[in-house]
Amino acid sequence: MNSSSAEVLNGENGASLLNSVDAFLFDCDGVIWKGDKLIDGVSETLQFLLFTYSNFEPLLFKLTRVLRDEIFSSSFAAAMYLKSIQFPPNKKVYVIGGEGIVEELHLAGFTSLGGPEDANKKIELKQNLFFHHDKTVGAVVVGLDQYINFYKLQYATLCIRENPGCLFIATNRDAVGHMTDLQEWPGAGCMVAAVCGTTQKEPVVVGKPSTFMMDFLLKKFNVDTSRMCMVGDRLDTDILFGQSAGCKTLLVLSGVTTLPALQDSANNIVPDYYTDKVSDLLQLLGP
Amino acid sequence: MNSSSAEVLNGENGASLLNSVDAFLFDCDGVIWKGDKLIDGVSETLQFLLFTYSNFEPLLFKLTRVLRDEIFSSSFAAAMYLKSIQFPPNKKVYVIGGEGIVEELHLAGFTSLGGPEDANKKIELKQNLFFHHDKTVGAVVVGLDQYINFYKLQYATLCIRENPGCLFIATNRDAVGHMTDLQEWPGAGCMVAAVCGTTQKEPVVVGKPSTFMMDFLLKKFNVDTSRMCMVGDRLDTDILFGQSAGCKTLLVLSGVTTLPALQDSANNIVPDYYTDKVSDLLQLLGP
Repeated sequence: MNSSSAEVLNGENGASLLNSVDAFLFDCDGVIWKGDKLIDGVSETLQFLLFTYSNFEPLLFKLTRVLRDEIFSSSFAAAMYLKSIQFPPNKKVYVIGGEGIVEELHLAGFTSLGGPEDANKKIELKQNLFFHHDKTVGAVVVGLDQYINFYKLQYATLCIRENPGCLFIATNRDAVGHMTDLQEWPGAGCMVAAVCGTTQKEPVVVGKPSTFMMDFLLKKFNVDTSRMCMVGDRLDTDILFGQSAGCKTLLVLSGVTTLPALQDSANNIVPDYYTDKVSDLLQLLGP
Repeated sequence: MNSSSAEVLNGENGASLLNSVDAFLFDCDGVIWKGDKLIDGVSETLQFLLFTYSNFEPLLFKLTRVLRDEIFSSSFAAAMYLKSIQFPPNKKVYVIGGEGIVEELHLAGFTSLGGPEDANKKIELKQNLFFHHDKTVGAVVVGLDQYINFYKLQYATLCIRENPGCLFIATNRDAVGHMTDLQEWPGAGCMVAAVCGTTQKEPVVVGKPSTFMMDFLLKKFNVDTSRMCMVGDRLDTDILFGQSAGCKTLLVLSGVTTLPALQDSANNIVPDYYTDKVSDLLQLLGP
């Protein structure tokens, strides 16, 4: 397959896209923001979609919260996953990751350990040292953690290996993240792989390209996936995720995927449409 | 296959083993030492083998150095691998790992970066931050690193992804290490997996179960593998490594493998002999 089946977004097919969907689902990194900056025109575009197309309301109302709360983030997905499986609230969750995961877990009513509070912990290996871990930890959630260290890796490993039935949950397995706008950095896939390497176990992945979040959103907002459009910057997570769920898909070139990568003959993940950036929707279809 | 084909070492088959081999190759962790302690009787046993069976000399002479220098360690293997491929001495080697790797590289004439000197480095992500790396790094060596951090992961990743032809070398992929005697800790396999996760590349593994070291030793000491006995505590690295190379194999139960694990019907890696610990050789066959 090649990109000949992906159409450049224009006024005509854009209008038909807007008429054929009730909701847009946006990836954030590389789509809504890049590094620590909002991508130009995003805010106006979301407002345009929200106020012009009122049937988008349920999802877009939430999506305006994305910018502040990461409500649809993979951290949120991890917390919702634990809710969905009725994870016992008297069990704890050990976190390798940032404040976002800890917050989402707390908002969902769970008690967490680790995360930022273990950022500076060190282990001095010596004879008769015994590393203790909390036996009431029933799940380990691993996401992007720029303060990854040996202490956290050992803590997570002992929970997964020694606490009976302890879950191993990955927010996502992205190889890289865009925490600054000039460079890529090790992504959650790096920390997840480290825990796989030491536990020899594979995680449940709750973020993209797993369909857990999509299923959750569909149930919550009662939207048919065929009437949704997934907008993302990555072929192998965002677009594949949208396609697996039966959504229409729009690739934006404001993130990791370049036009040559889309058009590469080795690429077999082809979105319905592609365009430079989210604000093209406003420019092509706005007032 | 099951353990019925592995014989318990006794005076009779032990004597025949000694007569049929010219050299023993010992794994260290779980065989020679455990955590930071020598296993009981090891030193006397090596001396017995060395002085009683003088044809063992070339390897055992070196093996007495194992205890001090880790001469046959996977760190040594990494340095020898670089020598064997004629790695240009004007290129640098970035290290995720401990002092042992750095030392072996220096002894072999290579210039390294990273390792212990990056143990306390931090990255504060902020706008316009650009993380610089040395463009003359031509190889990244990843081993067990109890000071693993985000800085090292980003440094290694940039070298592997951006420096043309940069090698990615793993000392080994052991899931766990025994740096203390009461517990297992994340092993080199943890750090290697983290770098695989972010680079999306697979390393060249120079330690067990790769046969690189065996090939190197054979060339150096001119010993026929069929006249060697590999002694180790792990089925899936030590014993497999010995078998792949055509050696006789002796499993000791002083490390990670238990007798039930050896005898488990799911296990299909069966050593020629097994015994509790290295010093049984002395007890069964000594004066």
